[in-house]
Amino acid sequence: MKAAVYAGPDRVAIEDVAEPRLEEPGDALVRVSLAAICGTDLHFVAGHADMEPGTVLGHEFVGEVVAVGAAVSGIRPGELVLGSDFTACGSCWWCRRGDHWECAERQFFGTGTAFGKALAGAQAEIVRVPRASTVLCPLPPGCPPERAIFVGDTLATGFAAAERGGVGPGDVVVVLGGGAVGQMASLACQAVGAAVVIVVDLVADRRALAAAQGALPATPEEVDSLVRRVTAGRGADVAVDAVGGARVLDAALTVVRPRGTVVSVGAHFDASFALPVRRAFAEELTVRFAIGDAIRLRDRLLPLVATGVIDPTVVVTERVGLSGVPAAYERFARHEATKILIDLE
Amino acid sequence: MKAAVYAGPDRVAIEDVAEPRLEEPGDALVRVSLAAICGTDLHFVAGHADMEPGTVLGHEFVGEVVAVGAAVSGIRPGELVLGSDFTACGSCWWCRRGDHWECAERQFFGTGTAFGKALAGAQAEIVRVPRASTVLCPLPPGCPPERAIFVGDTLATGFAAAERGGVGPGDVVVVLGGGAVGQMASLACQAVGAAVVIVVDLVADRRALAAAQGALPATPEEVDSLVRRVTAGRGADVAVDAVGGARVLDAALTVVRPRGTVVSVGAHFDASFALPVRRAFAEELTVRFAIGDAIRLRDRLLPLVATGVIDPTVVVTERVGLSGVPAAYERFARHEATKILIDLE
Amino acid sequence: MKAAVYAGPDRVAIEDVAEPRLEEPGDALVRVSLAAICGTDLHFVAGHADMEPGTVLGHEFVGEVVAVGAAVSGIRPGELVLGSDFTACGSCWWCRRGDHWECAERQFFGTGTAFGKALAGAQAEIVRVPRASTVLCPLPPGCPPERAIFVGDTLATGFAAAERGGVGPGDVVVVLGGGAVGQMASLACQAVGAAVVIVVDLVADRRALAAAQGALPATPEEVDSLVRRVTAGRGADVAVDAVGGARVLDAALTVVRPRGTVVSVGAHFDASFALPVRRAFAEELTVRFAIGDAIRLRDRLLPLVATGVIDPTVVVTERVGLSGVPAAYERFARHEATKILIDLE
Amino acid sequence: MKAAVYAGPDRVAIEDVAEPRLEEPGDALVRVSLAAICGTDLHFVAGHADMEPGTVLGHEFVGEVVAVGAAVSGIRPGELVLGSDFTACGSCWWCRRGDHWECAERQFFGTGTAFGKALAGAQAEIVRVPRASTVLCPLPPGCPPERAIFVGDTLATGFAAAERGGVGPGDVVVVLGGGAVGQMASLACQAVGAAVVIVVDLVADRRALAAAQGALPATPEEVDSLVRRVTAGRGADVAVDAVGGARVLDAALTVVRPRGTVVSVGAHFDASFALPVRRAFAEELTVRFAIGDAIRLRDRLLPLVATGVIDPTVVVTERVGLSGVPAAYERFARHEATKILIDLE
Repeated sequence: MKAAVYAGPDRVAIEDVAEPRLEEPGDALVRVSLAAICGTDLHFVAGHADMEPGTVLGHEFVGEVVAVGAAVSGIRPGELVLGSDFTACGSCWWCRRGDHWECAERQFFGTGTAFGKALAGAQAEIVRVPRASTVLCPLPPGCPPERAIFVGDTLATGFAAAERGGVGPGDVVVVLGGGAVGQMASLACQAVGAAVVIVVDLVADRRALAAAQGALPATPEEVDSLVRRVTAGRGADVAVDAVGGARVLDAALTVVRPRGTVVSVGAHFDASFALPVRRAFAEELTVRFAIGDAIRLRDRLLPLVATGVIDPTVVVTERVGLSGVPAAYERFARHEATKILIDLE
Repeated sequence: MKAAVYAGPDRVAIEDVAEPRLEEPGDALVRVSLAAICGTDLHFVAGHADMEPGTVLGHEFVGEVVAVGAAVSGIRPGELVLGSDFTACGSCWWCRRGDHWECAERQFFGTGTAFGKALAGAQAEIVRVPRASTVLCPLPPGCPPERAIFVGDTLATGFAAAERGGVGPGDVVVVLGGGAVGQMASLACQAVGAAVVIVVDLVADRRALAAAQGALPATPEEVDSLVRRVTAGRGADVAVDAVGGARVLDAALTVVRPRGTVVSVGAHFDASFALPVRRAFAEELTVRFAIGDAIRLRDRLLPLVATGVIDPTVVVTERVGLSGVPAAYERFARHEATKILIDLE
Repeated sequence: MKAAVYAGPDRVAIEDVAEPRLEEPGDALVRVSLAAICGTDLHFVAGHADMEPGTVLGHEFVGEVVAVGAAVSGIRPGELVLGSDFTACGSCWWCRRGDHWECAERQFFGTGTAFGKALAGAQAEIVRVPRASTVLCPLPPGCPPERAIFVGDTLATGFAAAERGGVGPGDVVVVLGGGAVGQMASLACQAVGAAVVIVVDLVADRRALAAAQGALPATPEEVDSLVRRVTAGRGADVAVDAVGGARVLDAALTVVRPRGTVVSVGAHFDASFALPVRRAFAEELTVRFAIGDAIRLRDRLLPLVATGVIDPTVVVTERVGLSGVPAAYERFARHEATKILIDLE
Repeated sequence: MKAAVYAGPDRVAIEDVAEPRLEEPGDALVRVSLAAICGTDLHFVAGHADMEPGTVLGHEFVGEVVAVGAAVSGIRPGELVLGSDFTACGSCWWCRRGDHWECAERQFFGTGTAFGKALAGAQAEIVRVPRASTVLCPLPPGCPPERAIFVGDTLATGFAAAERGGVGPGDVVVVLGGGAVGQMASLACQAVGAAVVIVVDLVADRRALAAAQGALPATPEEVDSLVRRVTAGRGADVAVDAVGGARVLDAALTVVRPRGTVVSVGAHFDASFALPVRRAFAEELTVRFAIGDAIRLRDRLLPLVATGVIDPTVVVTERVGLSGVPAAYERFARHEATKILIDLE
């Protein structure tokens, strides 16, 4: 079958690879109809992770089940399903709590051995899905696949900001970063009752997108005075770091009010961060980190995208066929696209 | 000063009454700029409650503070404020929990002695507000008074359905009754993340209003099959009785799924209701009753109406001056109006 | 192998039955070391449920895994495990929410077809456990099996009262009924922070047991004045019906305070119950029904019994071998025992 | 009247000072019957805070109301009341949320101007209490004053650890620091359902006290292996820093499991703390800071101490009369006492 594979640093190729087969009784095979390219893929294609050349890329997908192992329940051949970006056993102590990311059996599609045992990705005609009863979920009737696919990673991450931030009715939220995840966080916070969501980005197009989707846009220079104005000087109830790194986390801490919450859904690679602890204590702050968990969140999110309460496709800048994937990766790396979908049929 | 008073069964008159004065150190006087007529007023005007003729009517108001007692804090003369429909001491065991309705000092504006010691109403040029530090709240800058006034009663009641029903992201909610409270419940449930809100009413105009505001409309005959369809046959996560009485409460129990919640914000005057207890046990149902509490809820609701996330004015069918109030009550009693605002300036 | 079987109305016999085998890839076989007799068993032995004679009885068990199917994860042969009283698939919409009772695959051990497809019980040398990854759970190191076995049903039911009742620090709780479930509810409510738990029963021994375990005992005649006294006249924060039926549910409604919660973990067989709806509305009551769910609750409960924070064995009145089971059922039916454990080794 | 006053660095004296009078309509005067010495007092007596000599010390007290201003409700002369360590208006945005520490009117008894406008302390025959309706609370009937007094500060702080840490049934909690606050945190976490609380301290007597009160004791060297053992290698669900400073906060981060919570109720004076951000992100940690709030928490805590579910007096090492206070401060400063009560009658 055809698949998009990592062909060495900064190189993606479409290659013929062996079709996957059922290996374990909990496996399913899914004929991918829609996949997507994510910022995480870019990190691996750049060669930062020492991944094997030939690895099939991609961890976001919707498709049709074509075969299931003897132990699979709840998923039948012929069904249209959404995949999660990573797998989990579904029955250990962590999975029972809904904390699938900590499952010892976790495998992340298309990212080599960085987050668990290697598992071929989903930018391919067929993908093998371990623990399919846990990892796959039927699409609600009538739910557009191009919305559902976001639930498998990007929207789950954005929603984690609202969930872990404890965003509630009437809250004022600042989202730092207007990329795909930041835009999803903005939509999620609005969906759960925030009165005001301010999206901060240096790029005018991202601010315009956020504004068109119900947020107040701000540059980094404008945000402080805007927050003070809409909160009677108190600061934001919740501040979301949707970028990662010390500078943005610091900015989040700056805009949050006493007893407020900073939640970071961006990645952090530094060993330590200089937390302003005297102020954090005097103002009783909360700082939380969150990673999206599609398995836990999809039952809440699929109905919201199916009915259009949240429409994540607003960040899609282009759709390509499988043959167009290598060039799409190049445009994505040059920041010429926000989100790229891949049609496999 | 001029005020709308109860003049005997089915009669409202505009009369000259003595201007209220500060009586206790916790009192404030408010020059009313906007009041409203509520279904509750109708009940008292009909003479069902044995209220003294001459009682000033009305419990929904926005206005300017003109005087405060020595013990009032947080409220200053000249400020534009929202009133709550009932008063509470703000410091007893119940008030400390946020359960102001149970406060032993509760007084309900303009309803005689039905819900506590009598207190003159707010369909008047000036209203005296006991426990003003607790009962009044400044309007957020730029918040339209015609939206804020709903927070004082009707929207607080509708939101109580979402709050006590535990409505969360992705839920399917059925609201039984498309009057003012039902429409507010629909808006509130949507604001906190419901994926689908179905509003059920016999009246086509009310269904049309609900549909225009984001809900799915249904007649009582249609609701069961619609609910089954959008919930894969399970039933609604939450069902809201926004009318009261046995028939509607029963309908709410019919549409709710196992482990779901029925919340009633309608009034109940029967001594007992035949709860289907075998099913309630086998399906682990929850049945809750809720009364709006503007004092507890206004800090969440005012930001939502100020920014327009919730616009309760969609139910307003007319605005009158004080002199137009008697005729407005008559139209309201004939169901020719959904919600009537009263401009006093 | 030997097993305790239903031999017709009011008759239990020890018989040789065929040893169970692995039938599905998700099955496990467990060599039972400890089982128990429950009030539910009594109902079936009495012949009220039209169960097939020859049915192996019992749904509470601890034992050693002797074989697992190809799809079982997290459970290994040789491990000492706790069983849940009913099975669930672990991956459907209901199971994903933690509402295993609603799973369409639910089977209840040893109760014929009353609660799902028939499944042989656990008062036997070996029991077959479908969906073993979901239904079984390893015992924490050092956890006494005679404590753990309660987590599989009775303590899960008692804890459900605390969980669904929302019992929190400082609460005053009334538990109506001092049988095994009522005593478990008392222990559970104390464990999560209730300041006062009042256990109401007609039987002096049950009141004495409750008192010895930290509760205040009361007869039905004493409870009202006692509740008023310890709550400054307000009523209980939470009232637990641990018996079932209209009379006790009514008593629970009588003692609860405004905005309080009544939670019933007793069984209800009447079609309807006369809910005092006018008062329930005026006082904003909550009425909830709950069924224990060992699969959801065991991760919280096993650590509590392992460390002895909760010691459910206080209700054990006797331990018998398998051969002593028929006579034990007879004593249990005559109310001569509160809880009977069965040692199979 | 007599009072214990700050007489310059490291000097406490008993002096005759002017009796306080009612100054505002919200004031009350309380004849102190029991006061206490707290670690915070020591900080001010040491002269670190540039406090005026002559300042009456102390912020923990129980006493009898002797006079109330015209605006006070819920508190009557003759009542035995508990005081909170700081005042709050009770009606602003922060107070309405229960976040009294952020109230702009906050005054802290007996600590000069460090935490708001100066307010004379409670180690005196009579103390003036502003905002008495909010700041004072009647003692439950029969509640021993020596237990209640802890609710006013130390137990509220310890309980804040359980509350903000989200400690729930079955959790494993590590409390770092076995001083008065750490012991209160241990009792509070046990009261709300922790299965295991490990108290870590270098001092053997503190470990012995913790062990006698239901905790597992550990030295800093022992804690890691003990935590791993009781959590199957996962780490603690919640870790409480009950000391403050970088070293202990770091130790808390070390013992907490993925997706766990670190809550600090110790004071932090450093500008920044090196948060291990890469791990905090990868393991989705939560770090929270909390300050006790007796006004919010006393309604939960007073019933718990009244019934003895929590008995905070286990940390009391001596009781003195007012004349013994100067010498008691000296012993306290030399770490010869854990908690000292002052009897004023």
